[in-house]
Amino acid sequence: MEIRNASDDDWPKIYPIFRTTVEEGRTYAFPENLSLEEARPLWMETAPAVTVVAVEGDVILGSAKIGPNRPGRGSHIATASFMVDPSKQGHGVGRALGTFAIEWARSHDYRGMQFNAVVETNEPAVHLWKELGFEILTTVPGAFYHAQYGFVGLHVMYKSL
Amino acid sequence: MEIRNASDDDWPKIYPIFRTTVEEGRTYAFPENLSLEEARPLWMETAPAVTVVAVEGDVILGSAKIGPNRPGRGSHIATASFMVDPSKQGHGVGRALGTFAIEWARSHDYRGMQFNAVVETNEPAVHLWKELGFEILTTVPGAFYHAQYGFVGLHVMYKSL
Repeated sequence: MEIRNASDDDWPKIYPIFRTTVEEGRTYAFPENLSLEEARPLWMETAPAVTVVAVEGDVILGSAKIGPNRPGRGSHIATASFMVDPSKQGHGVGRALGTFAIEWARSHDYRGMQFNAVVETNEPAVHLWKELGFEILTTVPGAFYHAQYGFVGLHVMYKSL
Repeated sequence: MEIRNASDDDWPKIYPIFRTTVEEGRTYAFPENLSLEEARPLWMETAPAVTVVAVEGDVILGSAKIGPNRPGRGSHIATASFMVDPSKQGHGVGRALGTFAIEWARSHDYRGMQFNAVVETNEPAVHLWKELGFEILTTVPGAFYHAQYGFVGLHVMYKSL
């Protein structure tokens, strides 16, 4: 597995992962039913943020975007989002992308990384972020409408860098 | 004082308040030095969100924007931002806008209102939101670079509706 910057040409291969992940309704509060072009700016970042892909040869296993959580006087704290192809989960792709994101943020002099909205029932993700050093700062009650469980909380998670 | 929807024609009068507030560097993590046109989309909302102004005759005392904190499966929680003309502060404009925002969100069937980034040293704001029923869920350490105090925390505040 290699992690490299995503190019515009990668987006048509990332998009099905984005679309499936959003439609499953268990992890992300993106709008649903977005077309290839509508979804592109929600995932493909521009500087100072970056979008990367985890690949094996020509196959995209997952993707992450990393950048400032806020502009201006909040731009020293990073944030990141992650998606792994559902058929490739459980093989360390998320861990590799998470580790990459932390290192990227450290090397770009961010002072911390904040996840604003980790669905509390997304146990593999919550477990992974804890293993990588994130703590749950709070859980906003009922802030996510889960496709199976209805209203569940969103964790704010944070790691000092 | 009256609170009404902001029109495009109001923006040139709101902009100096926006610009001064951001440049003071004590309350908001917007980019600095934005032109009239660059700043417009950061404050003037489109449906389902709304931007309002508090006015006395032709004079704009302050402004607020209110809408969903997240799209899709997070769109049942509202968020809002507020700015009061520095020369009009301490006369209940913020309280009037805050009360309006809560009522607006209630009447639009939001289940809660979340403030993502209240600067912890902004005591008048923190005090007002507590009085209006918000609680501090957590404080992200050092997430705001304050013009006077350096790195200070950002409160996540929440009120159930």
